[in-house]
Amino acid sequence: MLIAQSGGPTAVINQSLVGAVMEAKKHAAIEKIYGALHGIQGILNEDLIDLGKESKSTLEAVASTPSAALGSIRRKPSRSDCTAIFRILEKYNVRYFFYIGGNDSAETTYIINEEAKRANYQLRCFHICKTIDNDLRQNDHTPGFGSAGKFVAQAFMGDNLDNLALGGVKINVVMGRHAGFLTATAALARQDEDDGPHLIYLPERPFAMSRFVKDVKAVHKKLGRCLIAVSEGIVDAQGTPIVVQAAPSNETDAHGNIQLSGTGALGDILAQEIRNKTKISRVRADTFGYLQRSFTGCISEVDAKEAFGVGTTAVKEATRGNIDGSIAIKRKPGRKYAVEFKRVSLKSVAKESRHMPDRFINKASNHVTQAFIDYAAPIIGNLPKVGKLKGVAVKKEEKQRTRP
Amino acid sequence: MLIAQSGGPTAVINQSLVGAVMEAKKHAAIEKIYGALHGIQGILNEDLIDLGKESKSTLEAVASTPSAALGSIRRKPSRSDCTAIFRILEKYNVRYFFYIGGNDSAETTYIINEEAKRANYQLRCFHICKTIDNDLRQNDHTPGFGSAGKFVAQAFMGDNLDNLALGGVKINVVMGRHAGFLTATAALARQDEDDGPHLIYLPERPFAMSRFVKDVKAVHKKLGRCLIAVSEGIVDAQGTPIVVQAAPSNETDAHGNIQLSGTGALGDILAQEIRNKTKISRVRADTFGYLQRSFTGCISEVDAKEAFGVGTTAVKEATRGNIDGSIAIKRKPGRKYAVEFKRVSLKSVAKESRHMPDRFINKASNHVTQAFIDYAAPIIGNLPKVGKLKGVAVKKEEKQRTRP
Repeated sequence: MLIAQSGGPTAVINQSLVGAVMEAKKHAAIEKIYGALHGIQGILNEDLIDLGKESKSTLEAVASTPSAALGSIRRKPSRSDCTAIFRILEKYNVRYFFYIGGNDSAETTYIINEEAKRANYQLRCFHICKTIDNDLRQNDHTPGFGSAGKFVAQAFMGDNLDNLALGGVKINVVMGRHAGFLTATAALARQDEDDGPHLIYLPERPFAMSRFVKDVKAVHKKLGRCLIAVSEGIVDAQGTPIVVQAAPSNETDAHGNIQLSGTGALGDILAQEIRNKTKISRVRADTFGYLQRSFTGCISEVDAKEAFGVGTTAVKEATRGNIDGSIAIKRKPGRKYAVEFKRVSLKSVAKESRHMPDRFINKASNHVTQAFIDYAAPIIGNLPKVGKLKGVAVKKEEKQRTRP
Repeated sequence: MLIAQSGGPTAVINQSLVGAVMEAKKHAAIEKIYGALHGIQGILNEDLIDLGKESKSTLEAVASTPSAALGSIRRKPSRSDCTAIFRILEKYNVRYFFYIGGNDSAETTYIINEEAKRANYQLRCFHICKTIDNDLRQNDHTPGFGSAGKFVAQAFMGDNLDNLALGGVKINVVMGRHAGFLTATAALARQDEDDGPHLIYLPERPFAMSRFVKDVKAVHKKLGRCLIAVSEGIVDAQGTPIVVQAAPSNETDAHGNIQLSGTGALGDILAQEIRNKTKISRVRADTFGYLQRSFTGCISEVDAKEAFGVGTTAVKEATRGNIDGSIAIKRKPGRKYAVEFKRVSLKSVAKESRHMPDRFINKASNHVTQAFIDYAAPIIGNLPKVGKLKGVAVKKEEKQRTRP
């Protein structure tokens, strides 16, 4: 077998890798466990490592470490890439192919699977889901989302207190190209009525600058402050990303995605608009950036466990005789949170992405609903407790006292 | 007594508050424990709360919560402010004043102390140190620095792996106006020779764009990637902050500081320069922003303990009969890490800030020395372990095999 990682790393993508490797060791049909470095690029370059030679303790340490241990890539294979890939896979007698990634990586797996059939190269092709964006079709949620959501929620918990201490308007830009799930997890930071985020803007609803300013003014008038979560992918009514208005680069990847992360431009545009259109003196913007997917020491236990589970399930399904598929996380019905891992078709996960359903977004299009909180809370798991003073006000003394 | 918090919040500033309150409860001379909301502004507005009415469990929960529980302010008192302050303090018979903050807050405490003497208002004035910038004179280090440094180090640990997985140049902008201590903590993320940050730029050395591009090119040529830590406060040879070149606002606070945080401008300027002057295709910049001082769930235990200690010490010193001072952290000589809290004069801490000593910065002015690592490691405490694959390379197969 050969396994590789692709797309944006997550805090638990190595759990899936290690889950697959540990499961593979149990199956006699799998004689060698190759890892390709940097996704399909590693196959094309024959940059392979022998994962069978990694010790159990190394694998366990890698599992709990963020980012893609095999390296990653954003590359969509052409037909000639596939021909080259099969020539190399055949040299090493690779008959099981596992690709860990998001919807673009599912597309890559789908292409390789279809081309393998066409080329008559016998290969079992499996996609193992991951993405902090939580935008894979067929999945209740995806590995990586829970830990990134935990980071976002913990960041907002602290930043809410910071904003409370100093006042003014604070805008935080959260990752999420087309889907607002990760931005929405900011809402889990709220413990009390007046806690932020007070406003949440998602790519699922058109963003109007005038409405934004109006919303911020209203919250600031009421509370003397305003904490805002904004998805990096917010678009105007015409579907143009707001960040494109002043982005320093128009870089796109092989799958045609415009670069949204790794720049503070969107936060700065929004902060400047508030400065220009209101009299609020303190306006700040932060962009959480890559910390959301790679920060060490902030991992959701549920997320880690499930990421491991999709990895083992992929190998089980492949060795059980299935030819191809993607391993999806399905939530079991019932009040208690439980999931199962199911094989679904590659095509049903590839390329197209999933969005926040309407029932997760409030009517004013500037926050989430309780239904979203209920959905996300078990995936993100425990959050630190925030302590607040009771703050018993001292009755104002009417007149001067003298020392007793 | 009256206590208040001022300046930028930290992850442990509430430890100092709670330390002082818990200590005050032990002293009969202190009849009431008032907290002023939002620093001296809270005194002027008579926005006081009764901290004596907070339960032990609330105080303990608050102690381990980031950000200033009493609210904060950036305000330098005028002479007429002081007159108003004393009138109000006298109404409540306040004779002990504790102000938790950085060098600007020490200046405020110094001004109030001097004015109290002039006005013949009997008041014991104490400054309790805090600042993530670690730039207070008289201190080996300051409360807040350890936890912020832990955040920065953990962020760089993960981001180093992210950069390793996808390649290219990654620039991370870290807080630090005039002192590079916090930016320097990024170096603690390194475990192996090739780990980032590969370059570290501090405000203590003039920043030249041409030199920066040259440094980045050299690292990228060698490793195929480059991870960089940059202080928000870096300045050119003339002393002008690099961020001012394209800052969206020229906001300054009451102490005359230009706003550097809460914008992604500096990271974007540096990333654009690398894009313009090199052929490196993937260039990203993140600005850590306010997360560094407020993130929940990332606190250095040593830092928390010391922050509590300076709070209790201030009250002990004041009730012991001392009139004024600032509580400084001194490191005891010897190989084992240990500190003591000493009363120093307000003037010796106020206003002026401290910088990274030469022995902490490398000769090329683009990284730190082992001396800095040795200095900072015990303050920041334990960091998560990073697991890496051994990565035994597979020997390239010479020719096609056929299935056995």
